[in-house]
Amino acid sequence: MEIIEDIAKMQAKAEELIIEKATRGFVPTMGALHEGHLSLARRSVEENGVTIMSVFVNPAQFMPGEDYDSYPRTWDEDLHLAEEVGVDIVFHPTAGQMYPPRRQTTVQVHELTKNLCGMSRGLGHFIGVTTVVAKLLNIVRPTTAYFGQKDAQQALVIQRMVIDLNFPVKISVCPIVREDDGLALSSRNRNIPADLRPRALALREGLSLGREMIRNRVYDAQSLFNAMCVHILRDDAIELDYLHIVSPETLDDVDKVDDIVLIAGAIKIGGVRLIDNILVGPGGPWED
Amino acid sequence: MEIIEDIAKMQAKAEELIIEKATRGFVPTMGALHEGHLSLARRSVEENGVTIMSVFVNPAQFMPGEDYDSYPRTWDEDLHLAEEVGVDIVFHPTAGQMYPPRRQTTVQVHELTKNLCGMSRGLGHFIGVTTVVAKLLNIVRPTTAYFGQKDAQQALVIQRMVIDLNFPVKISVCPIVREDDGLALSSRNRNIPADLRPRALALREGLSLGREMIRNRVYDAQSLFNAMCVHILRDDAIELDYLHIVSPETLDDVDKVDDIVLIAGAIKIGGVRLIDNILVGPGGPWED
Repeated sequence: MEIIEDIAKMQAKAEELIIEKATRGFVPTMGALHEGHLSLARRSVEENGVTIMSVFVNPAQFMPGEDYDSYPRTWDEDLHLAEEVGVDIVFHPTAGQMYPPRRQTTVQVHELTKNLCGMSRGLGHFIGVTTVVAKLLNIVRPTTAYFGQKDAQQALVIQRMVIDLNFPVKISVCPIVREDDGLALSSRNRNIPADLRPRALALREGLSLGREMIRNRVYDAQSLFNAMCVHILRDDAIELDYLHIVSPETLDDVDKVDDIVLIAGAIKIGGVRLIDNILVGPGGPWED
Repeated sequence: MEIIEDIAKMQAKAEELIIEKATRGFVPTMGALHEGHLSLARRSVEENGVTIMSVFVNPAQFMPGEDYDSYPRTWDEDLHLAEEVGVDIVFHPTAGQMYPPRRQTTVQVHELTKNLCGMSRGLGHFIGVTTVVAKLLNIVRPTTAYFGQKDAQQALVIQRMVIDLNFPVKISVCPIVREDDGLALSSRNRNIPADLRPRALALREGLSLGREMIRNRVYDAQSLFNAMCVHILRDDAIELDYLHIVSPETLDDVDKVDDIVLIAGAIKIGGVRLIDNILVGPGGPWED
């Protein structure tokens, strides 16, 4: 496995790979790899001649007061795991290289970033995400880039950006990977205090409750929202950041579940912010 | 010469050319070609294996009330001229294809777009420019893209965007081409009423006066500005849109000419907006 730390070297390598007609799978990560990342990497290895993974904790997508400093960093373990699943190249630039002085260009996806995490974390979060992904796509120039459905809004925003700016890349969105008890995998799970860990399931349970209610033909968004909230907020250790029932295409809130909806939420527990979501409609699916 | 009207076809062609290791020169235009455009195309033909010219009147960079509808369109003549100078491919997409419904992504260069044309036309102008150029770079994927120094701010903004977003392309900025009497070539010159045409030189003369004053060691920006204004505004047919003496790196206004400055202005004459600029410092150059 090759480790490339320099942008120009990565670009030269990308050019080589294009000329060799290698299919190039790309898995952008912020490190602290878990089975979610690895599922993306495995899929990329399966589907492509070459797999490139980036490991870069992107300061631009953390808002002031967020957990940039405490975001888990596990570089040695990341390298080991990446190699194990068959990643060919790890791209690992410095923040100084990615964001040189006088840089002043941003990429923004507008309507899709107004709700959910864009509303809760601020518009700057997704500006940070789309800008760094645009940069990474120009550096790595993959044929397919892999994103996880856990960050449902991010995946949709990236898909929109790629279409709107005509990036010559396919975006592949892969299913959420969960712990045995159902908690969605996240690098941030490492930061949940051990005693609170069982209670981190509250959001997942709330979402499952919503799904069950839809199965029982409760389609009114307000009724669903209220019941899910009551469930999640029973535990005083939980702070509800947001919970929305939205169209999976526009991310606009819906009043009624008359087609597939995305139910997406964010909670804070022990100072750690966790997100999760579920896609469900009047005809299911009843499991994920 | 090949004409490609479809984005996907242009992208497929670009991929082919990369694999063939052809150097790809790109000349983005809004058509209504003149010797300025052709000088870019000739340079591209000289320097590259393949030259691609785009012809697309980009609605996104025209602000409400501007001249999108009256912007000159001379498609048949453009094709003839492009072929004559050796362009290999003309890319000519429709606005509907470039801007499909629900598109919502923009690219913005911040500080560099606040002054000059960005201030006069509004921030939306350069957002329209950078967004369309980002799209075109992703569609055409050139090794070098050519821009004219006549649009000095645009050239600088594009260079900044390319660096900041790591587009794998070199930006080449080529000198202003002028009529015999010194008027900077512009597609909009076709729209100047014939009787006003000689008076369109006012801006160019004002800029030359500024340069002469610097040669005579007048370095105070206010004195230069006042004298240039007085010259330009002697003619009641002229409306001065802006005139600034700025740093050629940051485009911030300067108080004193102690290094090379960009003197850039915009006037309106007979309803037509014209821009021009000059680079000069205490040591010259005294001609362009």
